Amino acid sequence: MRYELYYWPQIQGRGEFVRLALAEAGADYVDVARRKGGIDKLQRLMTRKASEHPPFAPPFLKAGNLLIAQTANILAFLGARHRLAPKSEAGRLWVHQLQLTIADLVTEAHDTHHPIASGLYYEEQKPEALRAAKYFIAERMPKYLGYFESVLATGGKAPYLAGRAISYADLSLFQVIEGLRYAFPEAMRQLERKLPCAIRLHDRVAQRPNISTYLSSPHRMPFNKHGIFRHYPELDG
Amino acid sequence: MRYELYYWPQIQGRGEFVRLALAEAGADYVDVARRKGGIDKLQRLMTRKASEHPPFAPPFLKAGNLLIAQTANILAFLGARHRLAPKSEAGRLWVHQLQLTIADLVTEAHDTHHPIASGLYYEEQKPEALRAAKYFIAERMPKYLGYFESVLATGGKAPYLAGRAISYADLSLFQVIEGLRYAFPEAMRQLERKLPCAIRLHDRVAQRPNISTYLSSPHRMPFNKHGIFRHYPELDG
Repeated sequence: MRYELYYWPQIQGRGEFVRLALAEAGADYVDVARRKGGIDKLQRLMTRKASEHPPFAPPFLKAGNLLIAQTANILAFLGARHRLAPKSEAGRLWVHQLQLTIADLVTEAHDTHHPIASGLYYEEQKPEALRAAKYFIAERMPKYLGYFESVLATGGKAPYLAGRAISYADLSLFQVIEGLRYAFPEAMRQLERKLPCAIRLHDRVAQRPNISTYLSSPHRMPFNKHGIFRHYPELDG
Repeated sequence: MRYELYYWPQIQGRGEFVRLALAEAGADYVDVARRKGGIDKLQRLMTRKASEHPPFAPPFLKAGNLLIAQTANILAFLGARHRLAPKSEAGRLWVHQLQLTIADLVTEAHDTHHPIASGLYYEEQKPEALRAAKYFIAERMPKYLGYFESVLATGGKAPYLAGRAISYADLSLFQVIEGLRYAFPEAMRQLERKLPCAIRLHDRVAQRPNISTYLSSPHRMPFNKHGIFRHYPELDG
């Protein structure tokens, strides 16, 4: 079966977490909105007329008759289908818990450049962004990444967050580290010394054959100043 | 089995979404941190030493050997155990999708009074909060609640978000409406005219026997200025 992924075509954004899972799974999919007429199709599916289960926002995934929205929800679905999550209830809940924690971090990273409103331009909330980013770099980023580091550090020799097998949460943590390195290179350079296990996980994910192929393909867009992770030098502490 | 719920004892907060599900299910549980010594126990369980699956933050739920964190994750677990979610894959994914959308709304509602940093006091970010709340009331609150209204309005005669049976997402939408009414009474008074189905759902939830009993019990704390939903008259448009 060929999946249909719906997400804004110009950015990695939240869609990228889904793309990484599809890539690792070797799944067949179309990135609909990156094709001609795709954005119209995306917008049509968000109306109740067209969908029994309309999404509030992209990304969403069409899998046969299912239309699934919310990044973590899509990943839970793909995780179960493509062995990107443990089979046991305890393991499945753990990976989803980690993913939802990553989702919180992603929202906070986004809000550094849009602390007042996502509908305003960065330039319209720059003084507020300077304050927000300062706190994010000093407090939140170390707290979140330190949490994942401690999960990995105390996991014995297990290479991944949930043990010996890779899960969608590992792919997402890789992506968060990529994004934070792009957005806050100076802050991350200092912080990474304290994150040996997380960086090792990042590198391990990057070297997986399907991920490595995906990352060097044209399907992987570069980061830019329209996505969740944005590099504004003045925000990088 | 008696569940153990761990959440900050002085506020409804995110713990309240879990309390409502436990109440509707008629489940036996202890609200650990509201008992003597409970906060120490809560904090101990957040360390990797004490937990195989340490939470990043409360709320979390102990269910036998399982320790489950992240509100939406706890609700998915309880939903499956206590018939607060459909059994079909499509229905289960739909309810979780709705819950994650509610979670996004809850974060945005919180950030109106803490747009810069959750670790600073409201008084330290008041000008920014005034800007953020204005936008939230004008754009985001109507967009989110309008979305749930349209899901309900086009659901035929089905009384609940996922059809004939109540789900944890219905309980959460009830709680969001309660919270927004407390925080932004004037803005909600105006908006509610456009939300007849959502308000009907709210009232239907409030009248369910177990919920009604819970709401009039001492277990239901009042809203206050320490939680997610806070009433600062200056932010209410």
